[in-house]
Amino acid sequence: MQRTEIATLGEFGLIERLTKDIKLTKLTSKKGVGDDAAVIDNTGKQTLITTDLLLEGIHFNLIYSPLKHLGYKAAVVNFSDIYAMNGIPQQITVSLGIDKRMSVEDLETFYSGVKLACDVYGVDLVGGDTTSSLTGFTISITCVGIADDDKIVYRNGAKETDLIYVSGDLGASYMGLQLLERERSVFDGESGKAFQPDFGGKEYILERQLKPEARKDIIETLAANNIIPTSMIDISDGLSSDLLHICKQSNVGCHLFEERIPIDYQTAAMAETFNMNVATVALNGGEDYELLFTVPLTLHDKMNSITGIHLVGHITKHENGCYMVTRDGAEIQLKAQGWNPISE
Amino acid sequence: MQRTEIATLGEFGLIERLTKDIKLTKLTSKKGVGDDAAVIDNTGKQTLITTDLLLEGIHFNLIYSPLKHLGYKAAVVNFSDIYAMNGIPQQITVSLGIDKRMSVEDLETFYSGVKLACDVYGVDLVGGDTTSSLTGFTISITCVGIADDDKIVYRNGAKETDLIYVSGDLGASYMGLQLLERERSVFDGESGKAFQPDFGGKEYILERQLKPEARKDIIETLAANNIIPTSMIDISDGLSSDLLHICKQSNVGCHLFEERIPIDYQTAAMAETFNMNVATVALNGGEDYELLFTVPLTLHDKMNSITGIHLVGHITKHENGCYMVTRDGAEIQLKAQGWNPISE
Repeated sequence: MQRTEIATLGEFGLIERLTKDIKLTKLTSKKGVGDDAAVIDNTGKQTLITTDLLLEGIHFNLIYSPLKHLGYKAAVVNFSDIYAMNGIPQQITVSLGIDKRMSVEDLETFYSGVKLACDVYGVDLVGGDTTSSLTGFTISITCVGIADDDKIVYRNGAKETDLIYVSGDLGASYMGLQLLERERSVFDGESGKAFQPDFGGKEYILERQLKPEARKDIIETLAANNIIPTSMIDISDGLSSDLLHICKQSNVGCHLFEERIPIDYQTAAMAETFNMNVATVALNGGEDYELLFTVPLTLHDKMNSITGIHLVGHITKHENGCYMVTRDGAEIQLKAQGWNPISE
Repeated sequence: MQRTEIATLGEFGLIERLTKDIKLTKLTSKKGVGDDAAVIDNTGKQTLITTDLLLEGIHFNLIYSPLKHLGYKAAVVNFSDIYAMNGIPQQITVSLGIDKRMSVEDLETFYSGVKLACDVYGVDLVGGDTTSSLTGFTISITCVGIADDDKIVYRNGAKETDLIYVSGDLGASYMGLQLLERERSVFDGESGKAFQPDFGGKEYILERQLKPEARKDIIETLAANNIIPTSMIDISDGLSSDLLHICKQSNVGCHLFEERIPIDYQTAAMAETFNMNVATVALNGGEDYELLFTVPLTLHDKMNSITGIHLVGHITKHENGCYMVTRDGAEIQLKAQGWNPISE
């Protein structure tokens, strides 16, 4: 692959090259890259805005994160936040702090992943900021979405007796990360070799970690069935932590049933290999980008007809607290496994 | 000052502490911090969006940038982008990559600067992202603004014979930075001492660097006089580079008159001390956050009655190129002094 030094283009040349084939597709995108600000016409709709900051060494490791996947993931995790409000992502801005090691081609590869995600989800890239970084690759993405006022779903609307649903399956992304970390440790001991471990049969958990998808399909299915959840969040920190967010903001308790937590076969097998409790992995792993939401009990039959979602528990009174009922009938209190800057 | 380790609060505790006294003041701010996305109701107006990424060692040095000023500046430079579209900033999101050296109190100090800027400019803080950083303090701010469709000013509307105006004065921020860098070099040689040089008589250039303001007042004055510029940009990269942006996007040339470039006394004196050409400093220094704009020639008399702005040149045919007429009548071609990741 050709290697063009960024200095040969300069900032504006680089921006031109990275953004030259970007076409605006949304009616709401009036003006994209190339001015002090982008212009968005959301007349008659509510504007949603969310932002994520991804730092090298904390959120990704360039040794095993292909740049194209990284661009895809950085965009998708923001779309996921907009879907979690029952909105539709429309535009993103992409700001990059560029490490000296990177070439123009590296950035084009990263951008190709961002653009692919934009194509797949129907989102316009409308702006950003580009700067040099002394300390690793830095990615900051902001996403603008739209929603009808009466259809936005917050975290604070869960009511007693509501049913708790989760889409897809949980814990796979975390087990994918464990696998990548293990192989990297082995790799670190074998200097001079390229990082090419055999990942046969483990594609699903790796893809969940490296190239996750946002659940646009679930939002569309719920809309098609005229279902507006009472509360919703996307699972980025882990089922336990994110369910606690809903309970705290809704001032309710919950009962979560361990046996109902959806787990893929590869996730379970890898947890076994690592001698980890798979329920703990599903509860606290995070980065699943599945939707966790509540609906009134009266919708139970209607929900049964929808595929790809799983009933995992129900909302209780605040005084009852937040518990998981284990397979053997014990009740254990849910805890937020926090992010901790010291341990990271 | 008390020092609370961030780990004692955890991510959510930290966010709660930093955002607990934030009140939403804009009618358009429907939902702020605390959900997957903020909700903004801009019905009937256009939404503007801009974003800036600030990295330690590139955009600021914590040795001489007080954290409160840094927070203020990080917010203000985004407001400036919205004003440069002839819009009004409404909301910001603040994402931080937090270095291990920092305490909760450090972050509160930074936030106090952000909040002060929000108070002064009438902007709501509605969201963000908080993560740990292995590699220095990282700040990413996105600003949402509103504007009437027919009043938005782009960079591409300058026409032949238009007059070119700039607000305030130029080059001060750059000279403030030179002064800070020189004192830091001296300081680096005297280990064990606190960084407390004597900056008496140099307050203006230091404030322009450490705590700049966005020109909300100019936008309001232009609106009060029913003046809509044909093109506008805020001066972040330097007069030369930013005027070239207008000329390139408007497909025109320009004549800029050196003797008309507004320069403060402290800037000129400091340039003399550093043996620098003050016109070069004003042309290429950057970080002025003044407004550079064009208006039709017919508005000349009306513009004369407005204080705080300076006529610095006029727009010409594209074929005539972009030139500065020096004090001795020579014409020199304007060049963009680029950002260069290698030299930084």
